[in-house]
Amino acid sequence: MKYGVAIFPSKQLQDKANSLRARYDSHYALIPPHITLKEAFETEDAKTLIGEIKKIVKEVNPFTLHVFKYSAFNPMNNTIYMGVQESEELISLQKKLNTGVLEQEQAYQFVPHITVGQDLEDDEFHDVLGRLRMESINHEEICDRIQLLYQLDNGSWTVYETFLLGKDS
Amino acid sequence: MKYGVAIFPSKQLQDKANSLRARYDSHYALIPPHITLKEAFETEDAKTLIGEIKKIVKEVNPFTLHVFKYSAFNPMNNTIYMGVQESEELISLQKKLNTGVLEQEQAYQFVPHITVGQDLEDDEFHDVLGRLRMESINHEEICDRIQLLYQLDNGSWTVYETFLLGKDS
Repeated sequence: MKYGVAIFPSKQLQDKANSLRARYDSHYALIPPHITLKEAFETEDAKTLIGEIKKIVKEVNPFTLHVFKYSAFNPMNNTIYMGVQESEELISLQKKLNTGVLEQEQAYQFVPHITVGQDLEDDEFHDVLGRLRMESINHEEICDRIQLLYQLDNGSWTVYETFLLGKDS
Repeated sequence: MKYGVAIFPSKQLQDKANSLRARYDSHYALIPPHITLKEAFETEDAKTLIGEIKKIVKEVNPFTLHVFKYSAFNPMNNTIYMGVQESEELISLQKKLNTGVLEQEQAYQFVPHITVGQDLEDDEFHDVLGRLRMESINHEEICDRIQLLYQLDNGSWTVYETFLLGKDS
């Protein structure tokens, strides 16, 4: 089965992201707005996976999620995103979830982000990105949990389990 | 904020439900296939809510979820569903989640089900229901968790926390 690990931000931030995603994100209906921590991967051993994630979350405390800009992965592709500040905890979480038993080849460097547009035509991409860059975004909230998800045949994602961050979780 | 409590069945059963929902369920994109245990309700006190759910899940052990028929709420409305056998645990969970501190007025008797079609025109409703009733469905799986969700402004649902059933969870 195909699993992934992600953070869902607050309702407030998700609503803001969805106001853009509804128009610009081809994956709008497949998953709520999120920060990917571990890309889709195959495993049949959910037990080991969950055991590892439980260990990892104990080592990382809740932290401030700071969204500070709109940006894009262009020219790599036409994805537009809300940029998330690289905090120590976020980087640590992502690293731990992709090394050791959970080793996973990563095509690109980790850039924490919430996608708000993808698969856009060039013209629309430049229009939307230009407009968003004129707006400023500066939002902070506490992140105290991560989610393990699995993918259904239609491409959508279902949450399997929530993990609270920190020693006392 | 608006919350709800639901069970997501296995990927296998969700895929089967989605093959119908894609065509017949107007809520297809808003939430994965699910069994509702507590209908949408408003609260700003997530802490009390979570505390109550934690107490409840300790009192109910994992149980067998048995899907045994296709049926409909007609003539009440044109919703088509997979019927889930009323097990002691399922009934108990639903009752505990809707009484005491979590008291919630319920318009109808609890009929555990997974919706696969809704908002259908009469003709299509009767066609689809007739066809499904000719098929038989008989599926069992273990249910060992429930999910607390909240609703976004676009009507879709995000999982906030997972609760494992049983004393040792």
